[in-house]
Amino acid sequence: AADALLFKSTYEKEIDSILNLMTLEEKLGQLNLPSSGDITTGQAKSSNIAKLIEEGKVGGLFNIKSAEKIVEVQKIAVDKSRLHIPLLFGMDVIHGYQTTFPIPLGLSSSWDMEMIEQTARVAAQEASADGINWTFSPMVDISRDPRWGRVSEGNGEDVYLGGEIAKAMVRGYQGDDLTKENTILSCVKHFALYGAVEAGRDYNTVDMSKIRMYNEYLPPYKAAIDAGAASVMASFNEIDGIPATGNHWLLTDLLRNDWGFDGFVVTDYTGIPEMIAHGMGDLQTVSALALRAGVDMDMVGEGFLTTIKKSLDEGKVTMKEIDLAVKRILDAKYKLGLFDDPYKYCDVNRAKSEVFTKENRDFARKVGAASTVLLKNDEQVLPLKKSGTIALVGPLANNAVNMAGTWSVATVQENSVTLFDGLKEVAGDNVKVLYAKGSNLSYNKEFETNATMFGKAIPRDGRTDKQLLDEALAIAKNSDVIVAALGESAEMSGESSSRTNPEIPKVQKDLLQALLKTGKPVVLVLFTGRPLIMQEEDKTVPTILNVWFPGSEAGLSIADVLFGDVNPSGKLTATFPRNVGQIPLFYNHKNTGRPLLNTEGKFEKFRSNYLDVRNEALYPFGYGLSYTTFSYKNMTISSDEMTMDGTLEVSVDITNTGKYDGKEVVQLYTRDLVGSVTRPVKELKGFQKVFIKKGETKKVTFTLSAEDLKFYNYNLDYVAEPGAFKVFVGTNSNTQMSKSFELLK
Amino acid sequence: AADALLFKSTYEKEIDSILNLMTLEEKLGQLNLPSSGDITTGQAKSSNIAKLIEEGKVGGLFNIKSAEKIVEVQKIAVDKSRLHIPLLFGMDVIHGYQTTFPIPLGLSSSWDMEMIEQTARVAAQEASADGINWTFSPMVDISRDPRWGRVSEGNGEDVYLGGEIAKAMVRGYQGDDLTKENTILSCVKHFALYGAVEAGRDYNTVDMSKIRMYNEYLPPYKAAIDAGAASVMASFNEIDGIPATGNHWLLTDLLRNDWGFDGFVVTDYTGIPEMIAHGMGDLQTVSALALRAGVDMDMVGEGFLTTIKKSLDEGKVTMKEIDLAVKRILDAKYKLGLFDDPYKYCDVNRAKSEVFTKENRDFARKVGAASTVLLKNDEQVLPLKKSGTIALVGPLANNAVNMAGTWSVATVQENSVTLFDGLKEVAGDNVKVLYAKGSNLSYNKEFETNATMFGKAIPRDGRTDKQLLDEALAIAKNSDVIVAALGESAEMSGESSSRTNPEIPKVQKDLLQALLKTGKPVVLVLFTGRPLIMQEEDKTVPTILNVWFPGSEAGLSIADVLFGDVNPSGKLTATFPRNVGQIPLFYNHKNTGRPLLNTEGKFEKFRSNYLDVRNEALYPFGYGLSYTTFSYKNMTISSDEMTMDGTLEVSVDITNTGKYDGKEVVQLYTRDLVGSVTRPVKELKGFQKVFIKKGETKKVTFTLSAEDLKFYNYNLDYVAEPGAFKVFVGTNSNTQMSKSFELLK
Repeated sequence: AADALLFKSTYEKEIDSILNLMTLEEKLGQLNLPSSGDITTGQAKSSNIAKLIEEGKVGGLFNIKSAEKIVEVQKIAVDKSRLHIPLLFGMDVIHGYQTTFPIPLGLSSSWDMEMIEQTARVAAQEASADGINWTFSPMVDISRDPRWGRVSEGNGEDVYLGGEIAKAMVRGYQGDDLTKENTILSCVKHFALYGAVEAGRDYNTVDMSKIRMYNEYLPPYKAAIDAGAASVMASFNEIDGIPATGNHWLLTDLLRNDWGFDGFVVTDYTGIPEMIAHGMGDLQTVSALALRAGVDMDMVGEGFLTTIKKSLDEGKVTMKEIDLAVKRILDAKYKLGLFDDPYKYCDVNRAKSEVFTKENRDFARKVGAASTVLLKNDEQVLPLKKSGTIALVGPLANNAVNMAGTWSVATVQENSVTLFDGLKEVAGDNVKVLYAKGSNLSYNKEFETNATMFGKAIPRDGRTDKQLLDEALAIAKNSDVIVAALGESAEMSGESSSRTNPEIPKVQKDLLQALLKTGKPVVLVLFTGRPLIMQEEDKTVPTILNVWFPGSEAGLSIADVLFGDVNPSGKLTATFPRNVGQIPLFYNHKNTGRPLLNTEGKFEKFRSNYLDVRNEALYPFGYGLSYTTFSYKNMTISSDEMTMDGTLEVSVDITNTGKYDGKEVVQLYTRDLVGSVTRPVKELKGFQKVFIKKGETKKVTFTLSAEDLKFYNYNLDYVAEPGAFKVFVGTNSNTQMSKSFELLK
Repeated sequence: AADALLFKSTYEKEIDSILNLMTLEEKLGQLNLPSSGDITTGQAKSSNIAKLIEEGKVGGLFNIKSAEKIVEVQKIAVDKSRLHIPLLFGMDVIHGYQTTFPIPLGLSSSWDMEMIEQTARVAAQEASADGINWTFSPMVDISRDPRWGRVSEGNGEDVYLGGEIAKAMVRGYQGDDLTKENTILSCVKHFALYGAVEAGRDYNTVDMSKIRMYNEYLPPYKAAIDAGAASVMASFNEIDGIPATGNHWLLTDLLRNDWGFDGFVVTDYTGIPEMIAHGMGDLQTVSALALRAGVDMDMVGEGFLTTIKKSLDEGKVTMKEIDLAVKRILDAKYKLGLFDDPYKYCDVNRAKSEVFTKENRDFARKVGAASTVLLKNDEQVLPLKKSGTIALVGPLANNAVNMAGTWSVATVQENSVTLFDGLKEVAGDNVKVLYAKGSNLSYNKEFETNATMFGKAIPRDGRTDKQLLDEALAIAKNSDVIVAALGESAEMSGESSSRTNPEIPKVQKDLLQALLKTGKPVVLVLFTGRPLIMQEEDKTVPTILNVWFPGSEAGLSIADVLFGDVNPSGKLTATFPRNVGQIPLFYNHKNTGRPLLNTEGKFEKFRSNYLDVRNEALYPFGYGLSYTTFSYKNMTISSDEMTMDGTLEVSVDITNTGKYDGKEVVQLYTRDLVGSVTRPVKELKGFQKVFIKKGETKKVTFTLSAEDLKFYNYNLDYVAEPGAFKVFVGTNSNTQMSKSFELLK
């Protein structure tokens, strides 16, 4: 502690002495974060951004890839700018760097916190080896809306699970020491509530009560801050009528004053000038608003760079506010050790030896497999035998560039393993794999263009729909089993990829139905970045394996699962609704005053239900099958009372009753039966992923304390209220296995 | 003023003296509002409720119809109860009494405030003649969700229009003197925010920010209170985690303290015990919560009657709180003059002569016609000629009991005029009207049962779908024009009739497409209680007349429009989205930081739009056609500046450029370009319904003041902020005809 204080005092003196040397322009420069789109190796010196760097007008850069280029740019800052302050280098390292892991929604489905942390660790290792010292991750936005494309980038609908993942990711990126060469700054985003965009339309208005914010959306951000996240990104949306980027309550009162965050806040891409469109004023006004609200770094907007001086002259901001922001940026650079060694992330040899290694790829293969969710296996078609003939069909079956999914900017897309290649490799020589594309991505060419951007093409076939289908049916006829690789392209989810009708595209649905008509067993391998509407497939297809976008080793990950080398163990972290009209549908809803009394899907007049569809999800939160089966028995609770400072133990015996060894995600939920405010019908409060050999029984024990029962009440105090509770354990959020207990005063 | 004070003092003394005589049981009795389901004429004396009334345990009754029965019940209260306090008699007089007007969403489409007020006046006249002195109307819940069945009972999505209608309805029911024999108490409902139920599922959770409440949902309730509404009904939903029925902030801080409401608050049906399911505690707890929150009367729940004594004994409520509620109920009875003459609404002769009169029915016929909205008339098939042969087809074409729509409890359903009868009557002898049912309501029998409750049958035909269709095609072949009467049954909207897929039922869509294939001109007469998803019909049907549910004279109202005796002039008060995935879609949304730049429906990456559908509505708010056409020209504004206490005049010349005389709803919108919080892209601030003869030009002038530009800011202060504004005039909310002005400090 004494050491830390000494360090802090030394470092603060150092920062202060730098600050004293800086001109106003140089200060504003530190707050400026341009994108480096136009810099390529060798060209840096002559670029416009190089000139800005020389003039001290840049605090960091992003979207520049490779240690070689970054060295070159860092040299300009260090050698040519007056104060020699090194730059931050940021990048969207969202789910892996060059070795790419499943999209975050997929990764969250593993429910494996160690593994998730390790993905962030590997990503930091690779990114730092290649010059990057700051990632715009983790994205921890809770969302209940499958229409929103960015559900793919988040961890689903639950705050508790979302918080655990947030912490794991921050730990993975930052480790316990940011001065190491292989740890990087994380950036929690999008602060806040971005996942609640109205009508699931990206960038749309967000609105909710404070009590909902505190209980249902904010906890994962807070968890990341508590885990030490070094930076926070302000979201595009408004909160209580004021865009997050200009929202003082959010960025200062809540984030810094209540939560004690001491890192820096960056805007999202052009977040400041976008406040002009929001209707908050001209560039000068919104830039001052952002600074005063608590923004430290202006991504791309150049509002700080070009208008803050004027605002200072006019008394609209203070030098103290500017200095505070500058200090926070310098602080981050200091924490990374850039003042000691500006080139510590620019070891070109590390880049060559530590990126996309065999070891990392092997790990990615495992993670890809661990993130798949088996939705149906009614006739035990899976796992496939390693013999006979497989007809592999579908527009996603033999396509490398879509395998890594959305937001994988450091991926070399062509290097990803296709399902076709993965299947052949894992199957071995006893299996014949026939392939046909079967259909285009969509009947609609324009839609297809919009859904395959950023080089993630699924080239439109010259043949007609009928010719494509006929070819598929021909190989199907000669096969023992059909593997249909269908669903979304990578860019059908992700940013600005909202869909009002999130189903498998019609042409692929038609292909699927035609394949089913052949009478051969059909395995639907579902690629998706979001919960899809699957009512028709659920009715007609006996075998569905949801693989999301598994990352750079996709084909191998999937093949490992298809052939049973890996037993699937993923569980959904977001509800799959029956139809679009049910949205938002989520497991931890309120009971309402008129809950439905039957669970058989019968309509009840004057109860909360629809005339045309039953209330429940198609696949609920926490749902996922295994090749084996698990039986839950002997739930016990150590007492039916708990004191405010006591604990309870909840145990259950789980037997692997099937034919395969397997992992089960055991889930614990509580229900607060009576509250000073209405409380959800269930809340996840614990989970354990356990490996159980076939025939074996394991006892799984959870410990509950009053801390687990806390929530924000009407006054936004964080409290546990005495009274009656239920605790549930089970295999998904539908579980009814429960015990009752009382929390005593 | 001196008179008023004297009156108030006399009356307060009187109330106080009554209060002094009452036992606690009698006080709680005044707060008890049972439903009278089991009382029929002659049986009252022996019923269980009669016993309760005798014991002084009933303050009012509802759901009892006819002066004859009501006299009998009132006699029990007056003659047999110890204190002789007369009862209130309430009823859901929602859109007319026995003479039934269009469902409220239809009525609102008339944009005719005088007419709307007159419907409430006629309803009060009829209801009061038949013994009723209290109506549970107006329902002023703003809703943006067509999935919610009760959009049918409201006035659409706009707060300004909603407020104007709220005031008109209160004036209509209450007049300027509640002691008159033909005025009755109104009850504003459902307080508050009930229209924002999550996922459009009735009774579901509601959540929003305070700033949204104040600007986007609360104004119509406030307008009704300002107009003098005598009672308020608490809604089923929670607000900030506390059900409205137990929400002190809502029922006391806002309603009474801020808004100055001095009437009484009643719960909705079983609103108090439903708080048990909400998770707020047992019946005693929630009853005390409701009383302390500000509820005065307990509808059906019997929580007050059975538990408040215990709570009083235990110090959980005070006698002062009980007395206050009792005073408010007695006050209402006093205002009505019931203490002077308990039988003033029980004049059996009035009931015979003033209910469902020729005059009232003629008025209903006019109102029904004025509420229709012409959605398409591409080929000028309408108006129909009064000659030739019409094939009238559809499950709604010859059905009386569905014509009055949902919540029409006093209607004698069989008395409503069918479209078949109306068409024949208006057409006269030169027209031959052939009729075929064409299809059932739905392919799904179970759905049909749930959607035709309360005696509103559309009896399932014994014939097959094919036989029904063939019959329709056969008459179509022999006709000059086909009128297809399709859509929802009355109970497919309304309470507990939420739909995730609000389209015309598939069997009727199939019928419609088959009729179109005949090549004969097809007029779609659309029955609906909500905005329907009409994308397919909009593409394929050139002529669509939306008639909602027009009321007891439905067939005549519609026929008057079809033949051009009335030129349609209704405008939508709720957006018709293109598909369910766009919900919520409403005209007065925020701009966001990334608004779409093109208006041609082209997808723009990194802008707020969907991959699969364009952003705009299919039919926007304020939209509706006429048989004639109107041209807007010469928009002028009296100045480009306005002071805080000044006014501006905005004028436009409107020419009837078509072949028919007609009425046009001229709409004025403003946009506040820069605010301290984000502001809507457009807000309705004025409208005028003007009659313009063909060829004629009328100048329409609006006056704007700073009052029109006020909104609730971040601190919930009601302010107009200086700065730049735009003002638009036009024929619907899509209008781009505008002028700019500046509001000066």
